[in-house]
Amino acid sequence: MQGHKIPKYLKISQEIISQIRKGELSEGMRIPSENEIIEQFGVSNTTARKVLQEVELSGWATRVKGKGTFVHREKVVRSATRILSFTRNMAQAGLHPFTKVLFRGIVKEGYSEMINGRTHTLPGPIFKLHRLRFADRTPMMLEVRYISLRFCPDIMDKDLEGSLYGVYEKEYGLSLSEVDQMLSAIIIEAGVKEFLDVPDNTPGMLVDGVTFCGKNKVLEMERSIYRGDKYRFAVRAR
Amino acid sequence: MQGHKIPKYLKISQEIISQIRKGELSEGMRIPSENEIIEQFGVSNTTARKVLQEVELSGWATRVKGKGTFVHREKVVRSATRILSFTRNMAQAGLHPFTKVLFRGIVKEGYSEMINGRTHTLPGPIFKLHRLRFADRTPMMLEVRYISLRFCPDIMDKDLEGSLYGVYEKEYGLSLSEVDQMLSAIIIEAGVKEFLDVPDNTPGMLVDGVTFCGKNKVLEMERSIYRGDKYRFAVRAR
Repeated sequence: MQGHKIPKYLKISQEIISQIRKGELSEGMRIPSENEIIEQFGVSNTTARKVLQEVELSGWATRVKGKGTFVHREKVVRSATRILSFTRNMAQAGLHPFTKVLFRGIVKEGYSEMINGRTHTLPGPIFKLHRLRFADRTPMMLEVRYISLRFCPDIMDKDLEGSLYGVYEKEYGLSLSEVDQMLSAIIIEAGVKEFLDVPDNTPGMLVDGVTFCGKNKVLEMERSIYRGDKYRFAVRAR
Repeated sequence: MQGHKIPKYLKISQEIISQIRKGELSEGMRIPSENEIIEQFGVSNTTARKVLQEVELSGWATRVKGKGTFVHREKVVRSATRILSFTRNMAQAGLHPFTKVLFRGIVKEGYSEMINGRTHTLPGPIFKLHRLRFADRTPMMLEVRYISLRFCPDIMDKDLEGSLYGVYEKEYGLSLSEVDQMLSAIIIEAGVKEFLDVPDNTPGMLVDGVTFCGKNKVLEMERSIYRGDKYRFAVRAR
């Protein structure tokens, strides 16, 4: 490797990984074989072999003996025992987050939900935010957030296309002390299915949660649906 | 209330709750109305009203205005951030655990699984235990446990119809230091469906886990399927 020159095998493997990320090569599809890489890119068989190794090592594909190398997108692992924004979680997974705001507005009624045996309440008026979250171009999660206007009075005017946790911290100087959540396995139903672009009978994870910014200070509550085919939730008990 | 005499309304409500627990009154069914209780038990309308209130307050039924009171079995909440046996979890929920051993035996091959990004291995031979766990008469969860024979040499001969965590602690003096788990939302598929006695396309929670009895000491690994229609998982992040 001379100077800043990227080795050929890395360039080619990055191109293939980029195609997987964009969905041009999708789950279960065969990626180019050694011979196809040699022909297509005019490289040696050593380089072609290194390309395949690189793609496999990066976790984007699995080699099946005698059959080829197949796209294998690992599910995103989301820690449920750390306070973690969608945005940071995507970065951990090497994916690019994108957010589409579906609804934003102040609603008169408060919101109340029982989570882990305790009923939490956000008295109205509150700010309601409905967003669809993507990894690159893939819809991953649909969320409704109910946010305290007491702690975040002018949140309506903030940038709501990134991490809300970031907004709470940077714009309002709030530090998040605790997130309590309830996870349920569900079937993604009509109405949600269309947003997440999944076929009938796709499993999903329903997350009801409450976020505190200090003892008994309810900052927001959420109700989100994560695609079960794209996520695994990591928990740790001691 | 004189001496140890239980008030009538409590006696009757307990009888109704017992019918719900046994499944004689099942989810969604209407429980006797005020008038039916008056007739059936020969009590006043005040007592009948108190019976219905009591059943509702106990969380076993919900009153729907103008329609009646309907059985509403809350999902069992299972904490995923505390080390918790099925047996204790059932006791918390006021249910009676029952266990059916489907397979027990020593297998030569070890078991290896990636959990939360780390691969954990139990080298063979290991003890394999396949159990179906019930709440009263309802199948709730199907589990396979892979257990270290190094830490539990004669576990084959122990009582395996209760809490394994209890066996580890009482029989082998082991204290559990950590449980790492991975939760995935799935559709309960053929082969498992029959054991859990659920219809097609019932959601489930797949739990892959590893239990340690000290730093890096893998005591057991598990792969369990919880009925999604019966469980919610509680998590807490700080």
